[in-house]
Amino acid sequence: MKKVIVIGATGTIGKAVVEELGKRNEIITVGATSGQYQADISDINQVRALFDKVGKVDAVVVTAGALAFAPLAEFTPEQMQVGLNSKLMGQVNVALVAQHALKDGGSITLTSGSVSELTIRNGASASMVNSALDGFARGAAIELQRGIRINVVSPTLLTESLEAYGAYFIGFETVPAARVALAYSRSVEGAQTGQTYKVW
Amino acid sequence: MKKVIVIGATGTIGKAVVEELGKRNEIITVGATSGQYQADISDINQVRALFDKVGKVDAVVVTAGALAFAPLAEFTPEQMQVGLNSKLMGQVNVALVAQHALKDGGSITLTSGSVSELTIRNGASASMVNSALDGFARGAAIELQRGIRINVVSPTLLTESLEAYGAYFIGFETVPAARVALAYSRSVEGAQTGQTYKVW
Ligand SMILES: NC(=O)c1ccc[n+]([C@@H]2O[C@H](COP(=O)([O-])OP(=O)(O)OC[C@H]3O[C@@H](n4cnc5c(N)ncnc54)[C@H](OP(=O)(O)O)[C@@H]3O)[C@@H](O)[C@H]2O)c1
Ligand SMILES: NC(=O)c1ccc[n+]([C@@H]2O[C@H](COP(=O)([O-])OP(=O)(O)OC[C@H]3O[C@@H](n4cnc5c(N)ncnc54)[C@H](OP(=O)(O)O)[C@@H]3O)[C@@H](O)[C@H]2O)c1
Repeated sequence: MKKVIVIGATGTIGKAVVEELGKRNEIITVGATSGQYQADISDINQVRALFDKVGKVDAVVVTAGALAFAPLAEFTPEQMQVGLNSKLMGQVNVALVAQHALKDGGSITLTSGSVSELTIRNGASASMVNSALDGFARGAAIELQRGIRINVVSPTLLTESLEAYGAYFIGFETVPAARVALAYSRSVEGAQTGQTYKVW
Repeated sequence: MKKVIVIGATGTIGKAVVEELGKRNEIITVGATSGQYQADISDINQVRALFDKVGKVDAVVVTAGALAFAPLAEFTPEQMQVGLNSKLMGQVNVALVAQHALKDGGSITLTSGSVSELTIRNGASASMVNSALDGFARGAAIELQRGIRINVVSPTLLTESLEAYGAYFIGFETVPAARVALAYSRSVEGAQTGQTYKVW
């Protein structure tokens, strides 16, 4: 029975993670505006305040972070900043704070996505940010102290998100949120570190 | 005989690239403060002004971009911004501008580095930024128009940089700049796209 913060708990992936991890663990739900606690992860001070309020936990899972999609021919540096500030630095902020705030032997689990490798039109920022998250976790894993681990879950399009994003992913097999949630359990309740769990 | 802009031409890698590509091509050298033309790639307006001044070319190579190195336990979001603004967005800025400014059939060649996968202490930002560059090129390659290609060269520690950075890379084999330069020729003068040429 671990105490686990799930940031993004009310989202499509987060809800399934709460259900799966909740079978064996105590869950604390967080969102920018929803959940038991509120914190906008793109602001590291809000992340610090969150961990101060919640106190010592065993694990943090992030299933949050925005990205801009646009044709490469029209992509602006400002649009690139959306993914860099929210999905990338938001999750990196959580890792930088959690490395000090978690209990010994704790774990950090972030979310990237299959567009890192399964490239799609309008996806240059997604490929960049998702690859950056996988690389950050590989790099950070070897420096974490006190037995703390870090992994990334990289889902492909969720079956539950087909209606919202299906037009970008014609010809892709989707994965049910419940199957994606297993990878978060493997990270939180397993023993590996520095891994990217591809769910595709 | 292609016309090739080399941004970072006066650097350790850039000098070797100028020598190798210069055997068969016309080279235009660029730096933030050095070279025939000046442009700070972290500012997209300076990149636009550069391509306006130089006029139509066949290829652009970037061998420039700064990164912060620090222990993960002390890494701040501000230090992470160094690599995101300079090495990552600097090179992405060049790609975003070059896709419109290059001649048909032109090429864009960026520089990442082996710390994407061969992780080292103090290297969390390097792993993140280098992976991001490899991912950006994979994503951008499938959307580029007019036969324009994009690749990334990912060198490990250069023999010429052993004195400066060797302490971070104990036990690593180094590669001579002249060997690294071949990968840039393979990108500029070859036909592949979306590739990361690992020189390690
Ligand atoms: N859905 C897919 O098919 C899919 C596939 C691969 C990867 N992903 C990635 O997985 C992540 C979650 O996707 P999703 O579809 O589950 O998203 P979602 O349904 O839109 O849910 C997002 C969740 O994150 C929270 N959130 C948003 N911005 C936040 C911030 N700045 N700080 C803290 N919490 C924030 C939201 O709560 P509030 O509303 O309270 O802010 C919500 O709980 C995204 O990064 C996405 O790129 C999704
Ligand atoms: N050296 C290695 O062992 C090694 C290994 C793997 C990857 N890398 C990567 O390769 C790249 C080049 O490394 P290097 O060792 O050759 O660097 P370097 O010797 O320090 O040279 C950097 C070059 O880039 C130019 N430059 C720097 N900042 C710039 C900016 N904002 N805009 C435009 N030009 C700029 C410099 O010219 P000015 O002085 O005029 O600005 C100089 O020509 C870096 O991104 C590095 O991370 C290096």
